[in-house]
Amino acid sequence: MRNALLSSIRRMRPLVHCITNAVTVNDCANLLLAAGASPAMADTPEEMAEMVTLAQALVVNIGTLSPRTRDAMFRAAAAAKELGRPSVLDPVGAGASKLRTETAIGLLKTGAFTVVRGNISECRALAGESFTPHGVDASEGDLITEETLPEGVNFARRFARRFNVIVSISGVIDVVSNGAETFCIRNGCPMMARITGSGCMLSALTAAFLAADPTAPLEGAAAAVSTLGCCGEIARDRLAPGEGCASYRIKLIDAVSLFSDADWERMADIESL
Amino acid sequence: MRNALLSSIRRMRPLVHCITNAVTVNDCANLLLAAGASPAMADTPEEMAEMVTLAQALVVNIGTLSPRTRDAMFRAAAAAKELGRPSVLDPVGAGASKLRTETAIGLLKTGAFTVVRGNISECRALAGESFTPHGVDASEGDLITEETLPEGVNFARRFARRFNVIVSISGVIDVVSNGAETFCIRNGCPMMARITGSGCMLSALTAAFLAADPTAPLEGAAAAVSTLGCCGEIARDRLAPGEGCASYRIKLIDAVSLFSDADWERMADIESL
Amino acid sequence: MRNALLSSIRRMRPLVHCITNAVTVNDCANLLLAAGASPAMADTPEEMAEMVTLAQALVVNIGTLSPRTRDAMFRAAAAAKELGRPSVLDPVGAGASKLRTETAIGLLKTGAFTVVRGNISECRALAGESFTPHGVDASEGDLITEETLPEGVNFARRFARRFNVIVSISGVIDVVSNGAETFCIRNGCPMMARITGSGCMLSALTAAFLAADPTAPLEGAAAAVSTLGCCGEIARDRLAPGEGCASYRIKLIDAVSLFSDADWERMADIESL
Repeated sequence: MRNALLSSIRRMRPLVHCITNAVTVNDCANLLLAAGASPAMADTPEEMAEMVTLAQALVVNIGTLSPRTRDAMFRAAAAAKELGRPSVLDPVGAGASKLRTETAIGLLKTGAFTVVRGNISECRALAGESFTPHGVDASEGDLITEETLPEGVNFARRFARRFNVIVSISGVIDVVSNGAETFCIRNGCPMMARITGSGCMLSALTAAFLAADPTAPLEGAAAAVSTLGCCGEIARDRLAPGEGCASYRIKLIDAVSLFSDADWERMADIESL
Repeated sequence: MRNALLSSIRRMRPLVHCITNAVTVNDCANLLLAAGASPAMADTPEEMAEMVTLAQALVVNIGTLSPRTRDAMFRAAAAAKELGRPSVLDPVGAGASKLRTETAIGLLKTGAFTVVRGNISECRALAGESFTPHGVDASEGDLITEETLPEGVNFARRFARRFNVIVSISGVIDVVSNGAETFCIRNGCPMMARITGSGCMLSALTAAFLAADPTAPLEGAAAAVSTLGCCGEIARDRLAPGEGCASYRIKLIDAVSLFSDADWERMADIESL
Repeated sequence: MRNALLSSIRRMRPLVHCITNAVTVNDCANLLLAAGASPAMADTPEEMAEMVTLAQALVVNIGTLSPRTRDAMFRAAAAAKELGRPSVLDPVGAGASKLRTETAIGLLKTGAFTVVRGNISECRALAGESFTPHGVDASEGDLITEETLPEGVNFARRFARRFNVIVSISGVIDVVSNGAETFCIRNGCPMMARITGSGCMLSALTAAFLAADPTAPLEGAAAAVSTLGCCGEIARDRLAPGEGCASYRIKLIDAVSLFSDADWERMADIESL
């Protein structure tokens, strides 16, 4: 798998335009800056075409929806499609409400998105498969683990082929597939689920990796997953006694800002299927 | 007073649905995760009934209002009332503007809320009593202290009886009352007022405690106040030279993530009146 | 240049009303609390007149726009003008979209603002001069450095005279001018650009300084720039190995909460032209 994507991000400083939710918008902006990219978080419909034109990649995250941000999302998707900008859809909470499921499916059907990045419950909701909704978190019984890996990989392949998209499913094991090739990534740690925004930050980082090399989006998506996972491991190892969730979040973003392609070569655990 | 509520939260992992403000929404989500609960922060009217149905408790915080979030708040309150979900109203800045006072009173009058959690100025505004507004912070002269405790307790009792609600008033001494029973809590420290979101996080934590045992909401509300206060003391004690407000905030959430029922037994300072 | 402004803020605890963006609203509130001020972040049009009346200073930051927040901004500006409240305009991303440029120009033309605080690209966009937009960050080639200082100072003077405002332009060297007097500030460090919100926090801090002494706004604006810059240097010096961007942000706000007028006397590097 090719490397040097982080160096590219730091050299190019790509503008990554995010329409995202109020909960983690600050984390996403700081994560992008830590990675070396430049964030723009405008969500006004009237300026979407201009912002996407300026940007090298787009993230649409449906965490908090309003008619206006929804309008902005569809306009941004249309602009990204027309301009050929790499783009990431994060279907936060799809399955938890009709509005979320329908919005996510509508966005997916625009054909504008390069990557769908979500948890297994959200992706199953997009595919119309049964699931046990638990707010915006994946149902624990649903997470892809060593035991359920074959089933998870099959689902990812089906999803990617059916929607003609790269799917990046976060779980105990992360699975990234374009339908033909599939990567299983065994980086990260459980603490990442004890802070809000791990998933949103991964979607933003994925967009930065796509911007760094739009010609190899499958590899970029897998490298982004693995990069954030490695940083999650570094953050865990740097946690001192008496430090908990909030320190972990700080150390995770710290680790991204200090992470190098050489670190990635050494730490990445990516299996190609 | 019964205990083991934190263990229950961590075992049950209740979904706490928060309609809250843009300023502290990230803090509230992270605080809930630190406590062991699962946060959902959707604020779209169209999905309120579904979200409240999925959730085990509700928080409505009026920190930033728009016609749509206001609509969402009333729909969520109606759903919580119908489903019997425990719920917390945080009347941020009531008294500072007509819109806030009226919105808070309107919400209170739905009869949907188990607990009103605010500072004394906000609660006085809800009760139509005179107060000195100072934005969203309590006027310093109004804070309940040892000197003004009898008057504060009387106010809390009156408020609870009149609105048929548990009131949780934050101050130098915190007072929690259902009109019949009253608890005075002497945990916490002044640094908690030097960061934004202490109050909002307490409202969210209160909802998690209500979810852990909906049958004893007065005790749950008092335990939540005391728990965050104890964590505030731990955070203060862990502050190193050269560390200030922002480190304090990190250490406060850290402390919640590491806090146990045994710590609470040892540190809680709750007087029953 | 007069001093003791931080002591004044801590004694007066001025209410600073901010209409700001979703990305950095939490940072701005925490920064104001760290400085000793009291933040209010309401952005509902209906309550603007009341909030500005309660407040000692106003910040309008156009980072995320909607028709309602835009309406709130114009109402707040009108109230501030009528009441003579010191106010700061932060034209985030002016030049990046027509909507931003026009909104910022419209606000500037109300004549309500004491200070415009932005980067050079944003200020050039307001002045109708050519620029290379790069999202919300200044184009690197545009930043005022030792080499381009004379040109930057000339631009600042022209801008201040033309719009009858104090302009506070952030760059490698910061330039603050009212058209007649100009200050060049050589505090701060490059890490400040690696976190989101440095500029927004500076705008908020500027408003707190204006509140502390509304009679000397030029000096107040320059002192605010220098204060945050000094704190940026302290944060950098306190960064341990393995700590990156997120720790830097925490240490920056920490430094503000511990900074004193005496520290400022010792560290401030302000040249009067």
